[in-house]
Amino acid sequence: MKSHRKELWFEVPTRRGFINITSDVQRTIDESGVKEGLVLVNAMHITASVFINDDEPGLHQDYDEWLERLAPHEPVDGYRHNVGEDNADAHMKRQIMGREVVCAITEGRLDFGTWERIFYGEFDGRRKKRVLVKVIGE
Amino acid sequence: MKSHRKELWFEVPTRRGFINITSDVQRTIDESGVKEGLVLVNAMHITASVFINDDEPGLHQDYDEWLERLAPHEPVDGYRHNVGEDNADAHMKRQIMGREVVCAITEGRLDFGTWERIFYGEFDGRRKKRVLVKVIGE
Amino acid sequence: MKSHRKELWFEVPTRRGFINITSDVQRTIDESGVKEGLVLVNAMHITASVFINDDEPGLHQDYDEWLERLAPHEPVDGYRHNVGEDNADAHMKRQIMGREVVCAITEGRLDFGTWERIFYGEFDGRRKKRVLVKVIGE
Repeated sequence: MKSHRKELWFEVPTRRGFINITSDVQRTIDESGVKEGLVLVNAMHITASVFINDDEPGLHQDYDEWLERLAPHEPVDGYRHNVGEDNADAHMKRQIMGREVVCAITEGRLDFGTWERIFYGEFDGRRKKRVLVKVIGE
Repeated sequence: MKSHRKELWFEVPTRRGFINITSDVQRTIDESGVKEGLVLVNAMHITASVFINDDEPGLHQDYDEWLERLAPHEPVDGYRHNVGEDNADAHMKRQIMGREVVCAITEGRLDFGTWERIFYGEFDGRRKKRVLVKVIGE
Repeated sequence: MKSHRKELWFEVPTRRGFINITSDVQRTIDESGVKEGLVLVNAMHITASVFINDDEPGLHQDYDEWLERLAPHEPVDGYRHNVGEDNADAHMKRQIMGREVVCAITEGRLDFGTWERIFYGEFDGRRKKRVLVKVIGE
């Protein structure tokens, strides 16, 4: 069994944002030499997500507004966690969107449906944060 | 390490619906010959889910109404994604229910608690869609 | 490929609660002898979650209140599932927080960001319930 590990680093200049990381993940699979296996892609921070959905800007705006309705940033003091912090809502948003994805690798490629793309979802940005890619297989 | 891949196809005749796919997944494990390992089961579409919960029709109706409250289908033009489409809500619902499950395989069987069953969750049906089952192990 | 399986048992004395199980999972990895691989940690019950977030009591209270807003326990008869049961809300809450996490193992350790901790999330406690830890790798 082969395994390979890589960190991807991001600095989103705004509080929230989505970044398509599909090609970074495929590149990591290429480097691993794994042809059949699994790849785990997870946020290493607890106010960020990795998820799979459509690369469509309108949808991303819809996600942003929808998450803000389900777990609003304001009022900041409505959360017990916000003592010297203001990111409690980011911990909620990340649970809805998820921490990680696990994807199949088949013949060396991400085994994906037509519209599946992997995104880094940032909910408390404006600093450097990272994603772990771990490949296992043969 | 062995690996095995199979696609399961569904055509749900309504917009939304839940299908118990536990026996399909177990059959795929049987075909793989894997006795100890992991199985990934994921929707290959971004308006559908794979999740694990109870096979109880009342609960499934509760899920349907609850998801409709959290991410309503109407008004369709309340979502930026709905330009020539009407399925933005399905992209939200799928994030709550999840894209995938990863299950343990022990002695050739899904290593499950008493009530765990795997479901395909459709949120934008009335067309053919598929689920990927990827088995790895020995 | 090595594999190792262990069940962790819990009895939360209240309806809802969160338990940090990170050291139990690391101990299971230690027992497995796996240095590079993946560990799956999942609730074996459908009214409980395993998730990764911060070990901060204020945040846990925020989660509890937030989940209660999104999927209230009362009125109990507002859910079709609650025929002789009162835990329909627990089936909803568990979907938001998730059934499972998959974590990378690197050099024999959980490959985690600074604040990542694994939690058992109970939404229908006051009885014995269990979590499955399955390790695969080399």
